[in-house]
Amino acid sequence: MKVTASLVTIGDELLIGQIVDTNSAYIAKALNRIGVEVQEILSVKDEQASIIEAIERSLSFSPIVIMTGGLGPTKDDITKAALCEYLHCDLVQEPSVLENIKHLFAQRGYKELNNLNQDQALVPQKSMVIQNKLGTAPCLWTEVEGKVLINLPGVPFEMKQLIDHEIIPRLKQTYQQSAIVHHDLLVSGIPESDLAILLEDWENNLPDFIHLAYLPNRASIDLRFSAVGEHREELIKAIEEQIGLFKQVAGQYLVAENSGSIAQIVGEVLNQKDLTIATAESCTGGHIAHLLTSVSGSSAYFKGSVVAYTADVKEKVLNVSPALIAEKTVVSREVAEQMAMGAIAVLGTSIAVSTTGVAGPNKGEDGKDIGTVWVSVTNGQQMLSKAYFYPYLDREDFIKIVSQNALGLVVEFVKSHSL
Amino acid sequence: MKVTASLVTIGDELLIGQIVDTNSAYIAKALNRIGVEVQEILSVKDEQASIIEAIERSLSFSPIVIMTGGLGPTKDDITKAALCEYLHCDLVQEPSVLENIKHLFAQRGYKELNNLNQDQALVPQKSMVIQNKLGTAPCLWTEVEGKVLINLPGVPFEMKQLIDHEIIPRLKQTYQQSAIVHHDLLVSGIPESDLAILLEDWENNLPDFIHLAYLPNRASIDLRFSAVGEHREELIKAIEEQIGLFKQVAGQYLVAENSGSIAQIVGEVLNQKDLTIATAESCTGGHIAHLLTSVSGSSAYFKGSVVAYTADVKEKVLNVSPALIAEKTVVSREVAEQMAMGAIAVLGTSIAVSTTGVAGPNKGEDGKDIGTVWVSVTNGQQMLSKAYFYPYLDREDFIKIVSQNALGLVVEFVKSHSL
Repeated sequence: MKVTASLVTIGDELLIGQIVDTNSAYIAKALNRIGVEVQEILSVKDEQASIIEAIERSLSFSPIVIMTGGLGPTKDDITKAALCEYLHCDLVQEPSVLENIKHLFAQRGYKELNNLNQDQALVPQKSMVIQNKLGTAPCLWTEVEGKVLINLPGVPFEMKQLIDHEIIPRLKQTYQQSAIVHHDLLVSGIPESDLAILLEDWENNLPDFIHLAYLPNRASIDLRFSAVGEHREELIKAIEEQIGLFKQVAGQYLVAENSGSIAQIVGEVLNQKDLTIATAESCTGGHIAHLLTSVSGSSAYFKGSVVAYTADVKEKVLNVSPALIAEKTVVSREVAEQMAMGAIAVLGTSIAVSTTGVAGPNKGEDGKDIGTVWVSVTNGQQMLSKAYFYPYLDREDFIKIVSQNALGLVVEFVKSHSL
Repeated sequence: MKVTASLVTIGDELLIGQIVDTNSAYIAKALNRIGVEVQEILSVKDEQASIIEAIERSLSFSPIVIMTGGLGPTKDDITKAALCEYLHCDLVQEPSVLENIKHLFAQRGYKELNNLNQDQALVPQKSMVIQNKLGTAPCLWTEVEGKVLINLPGVPFEMKQLIDHEIIPRLKQTYQQSAIVHHDLLVSGIPESDLAILLEDWENNLPDFIHLAYLPNRASIDLRFSAVGEHREELIKAIEEQIGLFKQVAGQYLVAENSGSIAQIVGEVLNQKDLTIATAESCTGGHIAHLLTSVSGSSAYFKGSVVAYTADVKEKVLNVSPALIAEKTVVSREVAEQMAMGAIAVLGTSIAVSTTGVAGPNKGEDGKDIGTVWVSVTNGQQMLSKAYFYPYLDREDFIKIVSQNALGLVVEFVKSHSL
């Protein structure tokens, strides 16, 4: 039997766009790992009627409802009141929560608890408390007619700790009946629709329990297999079989398997050849370094970066020739290549990747139009360089997409050169 | 009259946590700017029944419903079919969409359109098409009994372009009747609950049309005013009055006004004193540089960074003494301070900020426990250094929170020193 969960996030800050809801994706991933599928995610205001309607709706779909937010000490935190209204019960003081709050306050060097903090120890009489070791808002577990309603604080690191160490282990005991396995193929060099036509026969013959999804990116497509069934090992085997068949039809477009992120793929290809990497970044402003260092274990191959935002730093730290900048402008293949060469020299790595371009919205130092960027990868001898042009992207997207492309170019370079 | 909108995002990738829904926050912000409040955000699967139920639910709440996703060319994209089912109409070919697709394909260097691409030109007969200049999936505008249902592609840069240039201008004409104004105060140095008690009398006397929310961060609290009314100028004036009263009660805790992000505040304080900045980053891996360069106009004060992930790079590029590292270990106040000094020397800025610590989950080079970090800010003479300890954070949160703290320390340094 398939078990589903519904997620509810509470908070006006979500509905005015001040905060992006990253909690739901984290919780959904954790639930998927124990075979629980998320039916829907609903974000509502700090408003009693909306919260109660969301509880009713979600419990009507799913035996597990996980809510985040609205458990703080201030006026706009009304989740506990809404819960009492829904459960027809009162708030009662829970001594263990009060102890936890006192302990946290002492740790932080504050003296006395005020009334509002004491009120954080009030919980709905029908709810069970799970202690939140990292914050003053308690986690609540409420059984409702054979279903379970879980309330978590909205602060991400508190939520994560509770999901990983308290909620998932408890849900696993009661609900884990089926397994869900996901497997991703990263495909490149073919438009999404041509790929779909190429794969049509194979896709039509996929077994019922395997679902296929196309997630197009700017320069590639994530092809995601999802399989639901009783035994994890059988699902893995079935997906592997299908990947074998996929490779017969479209293997030439396959870039990576189960890759997660392009930064992880870079890590894998560098580790395979025992290479180290540095970055020399202008318009990406350190974001490539950030992506690389977001991967656990990256210190094995990443040594460092020079973010050279001004021409001055390009010249003095990366040893780019001022005459070259004057001749070719700062956004040019030649400057990108000298930056990459400079990074190898300064940081002592086997390869380096560089970016130089103008992110906007203002014009670059030399008045060059926004949206143009040069990316280079080198090992000190060979060189792979490519220009991109993204005039319509906002600053944030420009930085992200150029960084992704730069890491893609690293993979291409490492795979196509004998290093 | 208050106008509300409901948002619906479609796609299995959201419900398995593979993708974080950033589209909704973007759309919510854009709607808020023209005085439209978002009632709720609902994320559902690529499943016809769920999509139709979401349309019905959302239209029952709001005169404006904006949906994203499910408009691509592959099998899992079923939004248009669901729309036809809901509207009781057929799909018809729209020549202008076919023209747009052909144009985009030619631009990308592909030759022939295949059947699936041609199918992207099929739209529900009752929908009006708005051309998507950046992608093959058309934007749909459907009037339903005096309400409007808008379908946008889920690809963020396509969605953004359509929201900014097509959807918001159209909605503004029909629906803009009220104004919404938000204003943020960044408060620090007092626990959330103590602040709430301090502000109690003032908060109770706020006019009805001003709503106050507390958004606690790790080291600060965002206090957000939201005012809804007819005239934008009057709302701004009323909020300014309330901020005046706030300052009388709790002015000493106010760090910044309407700041957006800490990186923007850094930009403001540096510009005020005409200072430039560099970063020397170990455990934050370039993320501080990325935050700084995410701010438009940052090239006025940000010159560059050295990401020194290994001891080797700290020594050779930032001139940290190997003897000092041997004596104090790499995660120490002394090394952080030498890194910041090194960055000023190498990058030629007025001030620099440095980080050195271990993000985990593996132990650091010298076996030091994860979670410890030293941050230093210097102008070459004076020095402000601080240690932090976050043993429970995962890698991603650790990098983010340390980066935020480092930028906070920059603000503290610049404000408290005569530079």
